[in-house]
Amino acid sequence: MRVIVLGGDGYLGWALTLRLIARGYEVVAVDNLYTRRAVEECGSTSALPILNTVERAKAIKEIFDGNYKFYMADVTDYHELYKIIEESKPDAIVHFAEQRSAPYSMRSARHAAYTMYNNIVSTINLIYAVKEIDKNIHIVKMGTLGEYGTPNFDIPESAFVDAHINDKKDSIIVPKFANSWYHWSKVHDTNNLIFANKLWGITVTDIMQGPVYGSRTKDIRDERLFTRLDFDETWGTVLNRFCVEAVLGLPLTVYGRGGQTRGFLSLEDSVEALARLIEHPPETGGYRVVNQFTQAYSINELAKIVSNAAAKLGIEVKADHIENPRVEKEEHYYNPERKVLPSLGLSKPSVDIEDAVYEIIRDLSNYKERLEAYKEVIMPKVRWR
Amino acid sequence: MRVIVLGGDGYLGWALTLRLIARGYEVVAVDNLYTRRAVEECGSTSALPILNTVERAKAIKEIFDGNYKFYMADVTDYHELYKIIEESKPDAIVHFAEQRSAPYSMRSARHAAYTMYNNIVSTINLIYAVKEIDKNIHIVKMGTLGEYGTPNFDIPESAFVDAHINDKKDSIIVPKFANSWYHWSKVHDTNNLIFANKLWGITVTDIMQGPVYGSRTKDIRDERLFTRLDFDETWGTVLNRFCVEAVLGLPLTVYGRGGQTRGFLSLEDSVEALARLIEHPPETGGYRVVNQFTQAYSINELAKIVSNAAAKLGIEVKADHIENPRVEKEEHYYNPERKVLPSLGLSKPSVDIEDAVYEIIRDLSNYKERLEAYKEVIMPKVRWR
Repeated sequence: MRVIVLGGDGYLGWALTLRLIARGYEVVAVDNLYTRRAVEECGSTSALPILNTVERAKAIKEIFDGNYKFYMADVTDYHELYKIIEESKPDAIVHFAEQRSAPYSMRSARHAAYTMYNNIVSTINLIYAVKEIDKNIHIVKMGTLGEYGTPNFDIPESAFVDAHINDKKDSIIVPKFANSWYHWSKVHDTNNLIFANKLWGITVTDIMQGPVYGSRTKDIRDERLFTRLDFDETWGTVLNRFCVEAVLGLPLTVYGRGGQTRGFLSLEDSVEALARLIEHPPETGGYRVVNQFTQAYSINELAKIVSNAAAKLGIEVKADHIENPRVEKEEHYYNPERKVLPSLGLSKPSVDIEDAVYEIIRDLSNYKERLEAYKEVIMPKVRWR
Repeated sequence: MRVIVLGGDGYLGWALTLRLIARGYEVVAVDNLYTRRAVEECGSTSALPILNTVERAKAIKEIFDGNYKFYMADVTDYHELYKIIEESKPDAIVHFAEQRSAPYSMRSARHAAYTMYNNIVSTINLIYAVKEIDKNIHIVKMGTLGEYGTPNFDIPESAFVDAHINDKKDSIIVPKFANSWYHWSKVHDTNNLIFANKLWGITVTDIMQGPVYGSRTKDIRDERLFTRLDFDETWGTVLNRFCVEAVLGLPLTVYGRGGQTRGFLSLEDSVEALARLIEHPPETGGYRVVNQFTQAYSINELAKIVSNAAAKLGIEVKADHIENPRVEKEEHYYNPERKVLPSLGLSKPSVDIEDAVYEIIRDLSNYKERLEAYKEVIMPKVRWR
């Protein structure tokens, strides 16, 4: 099996690369290193130290003797992308090469426009390259559960759903309502992919993933293999950010009342789910939607989990309810369907969330001094209003 | 009243500019002249000769003594746009500065990506500039009825609609299903505008317009004031294309069975509707959706109208059913709500469609020789599949 990972230098991209290499697959990673630069633009860095791309390739060679190739290239450049796909002849292409931060997209007109441009054009280029080169290549596209917002209906794992509108029945694209330019760019991607699937029969797995937490997977057994771990207001997802706050002795920054409920999963479960989705593609020409999470938690529940795990390491933490910089419902219905992952043998979290959080805090504790310098980038400054 | 017309050099942009100038308003027109170049890229030209931008400004001065200013600028450049809006202090901004051809967007990866980039980023820039400079500026955004496709439900004039999904009720964005990258870019714009309206209270009129036909408005009483009229496979809307075919003695190119039904309106009715929508904005912070057409026709009915009008000028035409280059239903339900325009006094077409078509054919007949050179760009070559 040969897999191209677009965005292969990122949090998930690098961790998935290691999982595929460990499984004996050939991996062609593509990245423009935008995230490394953009995190620096925000005055921050990865909480765990990561190697540069040359050292990473060397580590894969030494530790796994893996078949790995890295291209520094930009997926918004159609001809670069086309050449790489044409030469690599992959079975699947995983598309992570998107600007992935909601707060980053809300910083200014430039950040909003960049997010729209980069995410939408990269996906359009991927669609066309696959259509032109080989329609059997399976596109595995990373989306987000945030595309749906928090609707009153149960979120199905499908592109279309039956709806009754003014007493008439129709099959409609599952309704979405995103809450940032980033999340909207993903909705636009989904719409574009559904259209391409209908028109050209391109095979797609569209992954609606919840926030991921974790510093390790089974493959990350050596510090040279660390994947980036972001924690600042712009790039850090909530649970990873809470862990850094715990290590630094800061109160956990709960946005608003903390009743916001999302489906979460660990880094280990995310890469394992991705590997299985690649190994078990939908039928050729199919469009598969996956609600990718293992369990739903409210932000308040997460704060409790972090405080319990930290206590085991002798760290006392408290939660602070700070003004919510985002515009989102803080109490709401939430019920995404979850059938695809269980059908691939992933019914439950592989590790208990408190154990995973314990592991993150332990890993981070070794880098406490490094993190002290970044205290000011944790509190939210980007406001939605 | 001071109005900025983004895309002021185009078919509608120029015609609306003349209507607003004739009403005594100040108009600031902005255009990057992309359409002029892109039509040439497709080997075509405007069927009616149009002046360049300097001559156009001079004609407005001489004929109307109008208060008119033209900027050659690109709306995807945030700082250019910001400066123009800040200096002009407009009451309303009409946004026509979008790539407006479905076939153009379907030509290649580059054309698809350009359409997405230009249309989405220009709208994002407009949203941010208005938010930063003055949230009371009324954004009048040109969308298309094509955003909806041909749904089984009645298309309401609203951003949201109640829907029952799996026995649960929710308010959802009115479902869309577009049939080209161009139409999808407009759906993405609509979603982005609805989000901006919810988040920042920006005042929007989102116009879902049907195809426009016509060579004249009441203001175009002099050939110096001609607006562009496109007729080729890429840039010509169906009725204008049929008229050129009639003049050239070519059979009318009906795509497929010709049962495709759309809501049409004349250029006169389009600019009058636009002027009234500008004069009667929604309440501040409101989001108004307008289904802008005066009557629905099938393509077969249009072919009949053209053949009747042509007969009055002694021209005999026949219709050819050619293979449909697009992917679209050729028989379907179609019922868009139509309340906003009647509430502004526009219940019916101001001119009979057959009379308007007669006028187009008569205008075009004066330029028959000029058109002879462009016969080959009429037949569709860009195919959706």
